Amino acid sequence: MVQARVAVAGVGNNISALVQGVRYYEGRSAGEDPELPGIRRPVIGALRPHDVEFVAAYDVSPAKIGLDVADAILAGKNNYPRLDVTLPATGVCVEPGIREHDPDADVRRVTESLRRSGAEVLVYSLPTGLQWAATAYATAAAAAGVALVNCTPELVSRDQRMLDAFVAAGVPVLGDDLASHFGASIVHRSLLALLRERGITLDQTYQINIGGNEDFRNLREHGESKKASKLNAIAQDGLSLDRVDIIPSGGYVAGLRDQKVAYVSLDGIGWAGTPVNLELRLRVQDSSNAAGVIIDLVRIAVAARRIGLKGFVPAAAALLKSPPDGHGAYSQSAVNTSFEELDAAAESRSAAE
Amino acid sequence: MVQARVAVAGVGNNISALVQGVRYYEGRSAGEDPELPGIRRPVIGALRPHDVEFVAAYDVSPAKIGLDVADAILAGKNNYPRLDVTLPATGVCVEPGIREHDPDADVRRVTESLRRSGAEVLVYSLPTGLQWAATAYATAAAAAGVALVNCTPELVSRDQRMLDAFVAAGVPVLGDDLASHFGASIVHRSLLALLRERGITLDQTYQINIGGNEDFRNLREHGESKKASKLNAIAQDGLSLDRVDIIPSGGYVAGLRDQKVAYVSLDGIGWAGTPVNLELRLRVQDSSNAAGVIIDLVRIAVAARRIGLKGFVPAAAALLKSPPDGHGAYSQSAVNTSFEELDAAAESRSAAE
Amino acid sequence: MVQARVAVAGVGNNISALVQGVRYYEGRSAGEDPELPGIRRPVIGALRPHDVEFVAAYDVSPAKIGLDVADAILAGKNNYPRLDVTLPATGVCVEPGIREHDPDADVRRVTESLRRSGAEVLVYSLPTGLQWAATAYATAAAAAGVALVNCTPELVSRDQRMLDAFVAAGVPVLGDDLASHFGASIVHRSLLALLRERGITLDQTYQINIGGNEDFRNLREHGESKKASKLNAIAQDGLSLDRVDIIPSGGYVAGLRDQKVAYVSLDGIGWAGTPVNLELRLRVQDSSNAAGVIIDLVRIAVAARRIGLKGFVPAAAALLKSPPDGHGAYSQSAVNTSFEELDAAAESRSAAE
Amino acid sequence: MVQARVAVAGVGNNISALVQGVRYYEGRSAGEDPELPGIRRPVIGALRPHDVEFVAAYDVSPAKIGLDVADAILAGKNNYPRLDVTLPATGVCVEPGIREHDPDADVRRVTESLRRSGAEVLVYSLPTGLQWAATAYATAAAAAGVALVNCTPELVSRDQRMLDAFVAAGVPVLGDDLASHFGASIVHRSLLALLRERGITLDQTYQINIGGNEDFRNLREHGESKKASKLNAIAQDGLSLDRVDIIPSGGYVAGLRDQKVAYVSLDGIGWAGTPVNLELRLRVQDSSNAAGVIIDLVRIAVAARRIGLKGFVPAAAALLKSPPDGHGAYSQSAVNTSFEELDAAAESRSAAE
Repeated sequence: MVQARVAVAGVGNNISALVQGVRYYEGRSAGEDPELPGIRRPVIGALRPHDVEFVAAYDVSPAKIGLDVADAILAGKNNYPRLDVTLPATGVCVEPGIREHDPDADVRRVTESLRRSGAEVLVYSLPTGLQWAATAYATAAAAAGVALVNCTPELVSRDQRMLDAFVAAGVPVLGDDLASHFGASIVHRSLLALLRERGITLDQTYQINIGGNEDFRNLREHGESKKASKLNAIAQDGLSLDRVDIIPSGGYVAGLRDQKVAYVSLDGIGWAGTPVNLELRLRVQDSSNAAGVIIDLVRIAVAARRIGLKGFVPAAAALLKSPPDGHGAYSQSAVNTSFEELDAAAESRSAAE
Repeated sequence: MVQARVAVAGVGNNISALVQGVRYYEGRSAGEDPELPGIRRPVIGALRPHDVEFVAAYDVSPAKIGLDVADAILAGKNNYPRLDVTLPATGVCVEPGIREHDPDADVRRVTESLRRSGAEVLVYSLPTGLQWAATAYATAAAAAGVALVNCTPELVSRDQRMLDAFVAAGVPVLGDDLASHFGASIVHRSLLALLRERGITLDQTYQINIGGNEDFRNLREHGESKKASKLNAIAQDGLSLDRVDIIPSGGYVAGLRDQKVAYVSLDGIGWAGTPVNLELRLRVQDSSNAAGVIIDLVRIAVAARRIGLKGFVPAAAALLKSPPDGHGAYSQSAVNTSFEELDAAAESRSAAE
Repeated sequence: MVQARVAVAGVGNNISALVQGVRYYEGRSAGEDPELPGIRRPVIGALRPHDVEFVAAYDVSPAKIGLDVADAILAGKNNYPRLDVTLPATGVCVEPGIREHDPDADVRRVTESLRRSGAEVLVYSLPTGLQWAATAYATAAAAAGVALVNCTPELVSRDQRMLDAFVAAGVPVLGDDLASHFGASIVHRSLLALLRERGITLDQTYQINIGGNEDFRNLREHGESKKASKLNAIAQDGLSLDRVDIIPSGGYVAGLRDQKVAYVSLDGIGWAGTPVNLELRLRVQDSSNAAGVIIDLVRIAVAARRIGLKGFVPAAAALLKSPPDGHGAYSQSAVNTSFEELDAAAESRSAAE
Repeated sequence: MVQARVAVAGVGNNISALVQGVRYYEGRSAGEDPELPGIRRPVIGALRPHDVEFVAAYDVSPAKIGLDVADAILAGKNNYPRLDVTLPATGVCVEPGIREHDPDADVRRVTESLRRSGAEVLVYSLPTGLQWAATAYATAAAAAGVALVNCTPELVSRDQRMLDAFVAAGVPVLGDDLASHFGASIVHRSLLALLRERGITLDQTYQINIGGNEDFRNLREHGESKKASKLNAIAQDGLSLDRVDIIPSGGYVAGLRDQKVAYVSLDGIGWAGTPVNLELRLRVQDSSNAAGVIIDLVRIAVAARRIGLKGFVPAAAALLKSPPDGHGAYSQSAVNTSFEELDAAAESRSAAE
């Protein structure tokens, strides 16, 4: 299988996790071990997790520009752990990213660079909150005929004009906002659903998250939109949100580095008013939680682009917090069909070769 | 609605929770508050949780025999909390239970007593491990034409001869072994399923339970069958049980009284081999966890008996750890249909009145 | 023993805990039970915890002004729980407190009111951060010849001019800032000391606090000074503070109401670099933690005033975060001697009566 | 400094931790890093943690006999982790240990072997409960003029005849029973003391331990003596033990391997009866907890033997659960003096060289 050719915008912890992880799975696939720990779907459209080649990278940090991607992922404020994998130079240097003060020229430059690189997909992974940047990179990707994966809550796939641009360009756009691989929201949501299913009445519940990467500094101050999104993530029938407190960032805890710790507390009322209490601590590698989902979105985007799909691809719906038209628009069977389409096309092409 | 007439065998913590809880819901239903906290199904076959009258009780403890049920539930080694409800005398005294050394005479005596009491259902709730007692009480119930709810893992509904006896008697038998209302097994199982669904590889997990009632003394010594049953409860596709340690009773902790505390730990492997860790503490009122399920089984049994159903009733399947023929034999739609049958019959009778 | 005559400035949760708690201990002392749960020192200068009479109260909240103290403590944003005690009207109504725009007139009014009330001590317990208010109430107290207990970090006993004013007035002044009765800082500090004593090297540690009273809203935004104070509280020989993260308020969690939850995590390095990990959750009633210390300070202040002591009283040193001249100025034996002086004087007076 | 020459009886996890740890500290001392993480006392009698040479080893396991010590520590049921250190062959093979059926001949053989090896100290570290074996090895050590460290609760230093034998042989004997480096008992004890010091009344507390090494299998069945010893360890003035539940082994959890997890729960009563709750999880490497103490005992024993001390050495008192005559017999100043004696003698000898 020809490797997926991937460009990245923003060379932060998520991309560090992605780049190192691809090497990790490459190492495992070379051995006899058939297992791929931490992988949801071993093959998507004939692509395995390590069938990825990085062909371009953009960032505005002087600490990263000009470095080989293999070095840039360990530079600046990045603090994802250095995994026990070899990291040979990729031969691809970080180019200056799009800057706010003169985006148009930069967009043209990045468009040209994407074309030259032969990238099939661009992963947009800047810090949360930069709508102008998301729009700029999406514009460049569409212009270059490159698919886009939007990891952030910025509006791209839900922006009709942007979506139209990708459809017109004949390439996929997958967004917005990564659903975490295994995070506090999904655990919290599952436990609340279980409580309800068993007939335990919710009294009070809270969730508080802390971490030691730059996200947790930002979130502490600008957590309101994240809070709403997290409340959305656990919302469900019969849950009164006034019994729920969510704190997206309780604070920046330097010692945790790229780890994230969530505390979840549930107080329920059982038979005859007697109490049910559940206290939980979840610790994850924050950027692994992103990379474990990005790897699926990248493979969906590339596989879809190779068979001429454009716009949003239903297979991606469950991997995103905010797909266009919301989750309700994509049934489980539509998602399954979409995956089968990608796999079948890849197989028939492989048979033809 | 005519109240369900209930007899109980074994006046331990579970029955204390049941009797006090019935008063609790009676109190709430009198008020304006339409909510029934801790109740899975407000109405079953027209019966609400407080539509229960206790008409007979059996126990071998000298500390309980001869006491009014309202007093007996607080006597002996019982340590379920005294809830904040009024507990008027029921007018029903605890009669001597069936003893092992001469069960036949006692079975005849209890059969006669059940008939006189007008009981519609007998709740069998002795300590785990007394197969002879389960058989004896079931024999008496069948002989008296009274339905049976078997709260214990002893074989009754799964014993073909016993099941035949109830069918012959024309009354329901619901068993075996209560599924907990909200317990460590269901939480553990849900989290393992979630881990798997998200593509996190299980590394190791354990569950340990402690409590301060008599069960925890027994279980510490005789926990092997309970361990197997708990492993069953969390077993699922793709879970290798050699990665799972379950300790049904880590020990008897007097200070917890009738509370049960479970510690659950999960270590998973996420993207690129990075760790995912979840630590959880669950605290519940142990006997509330039983009573919250008994109340549904009692109402199913009585509603079913009133419309002439006999043998096992599918509506009960999800409330039991070991229904006859296993859970696989009862689809969700069969369960729903069974509930609808009970409700519809009650409605049409009520319309006829 | 004549009851201590107490005035309060600020009728918030702390005063609710104080007023209700005094009734609680009154109830217990009437019975046969000789134990006083939650009390560090049953008798101070012949005063027991319930030997307290409230004689004046000041607040600026329209929701509280004019109410009897027994009602005001349950009004406004106060959310300390309503304990299971009788709360007869005190006969004392909340008077308007000192306002910032015209403090001088208000100081004169409160001075006069304090004199009329016969108060022996004024407990200053406004929200943290209002230095002008602390100074104004202290001025009024000194002018009225009333002792002062300063519960907040505002400068009073550490302000030489203020201290001089109380010495000149011949009455005690006890401050500043309550040490918590049993809180995260003291637990964290103890565990860090233990780690060190045993030869375990600290790797990283953090502490995060959440709660549902107004303090936690304030602290989330203005937590820097609190953070410094908390770092001080755990500082000790051989502890490098760059391994410590403290978050005084991770956020406001409405569901916790007046409860405070602290999470403490310690990672240490043991023999041969192998890890030691300790995770802890502490839950306390926040304002009980204050009232349990205020009751001792009030008794020290009144007992000291009755025997003519003025300025700071060493018996109070361990109950405050910032006594004048720091903790180093008060040896354990000086503290003990001070308590003995209070007790002996009370005894000799009682013998004389 | 001439290295301490150490023999070991029982080549289990504790010895694996000891042998690997000595290599670990050797590695660190070679570098520039002056810190010794996890070490209570960097130098004892001029001996650093890595100044240890293993000269003889005894075990009855066929899986270990005949192997070089460096291999034997990883064999059989041992499951202490393989640390990231080089483990060159020691040149010392495990010899057959003393067997129960014919101890006398074996004692003679081991005595002879100890003499030939030039060992200065024998570390007795067999599974708990084998008094005959402790006596046999102690007899051999005394006969060979070798000091003894008894890691187990078996009676050796508290057995007057045995103590006399070591005094007669002119060598030290240090025992009985290792105090853990950093374990649940010391943490539990400290928190209970803190609770009391602050005036919080203890309501209920429990401690439960689980682990995945062979000790936890044994303890589950034979935990009564351990329970008593653990209750002793937390006993203190004013603590009513009927409010305390201790479970030394809640069970064997294979997945934890040589790790030990303790859960500690404290419920206290604060001001006005309001609750204080503390929940804690402690995870340690079980055998590191032993080796971190053995290294100090070995150095005390060797340093003491080199200057002609015999019998028990007070410097060891705080490192043992049951020193002869109990802890009360050794004041802190006596312990300090003992350490100073060892250090001073070593210094003067070093100056003389």
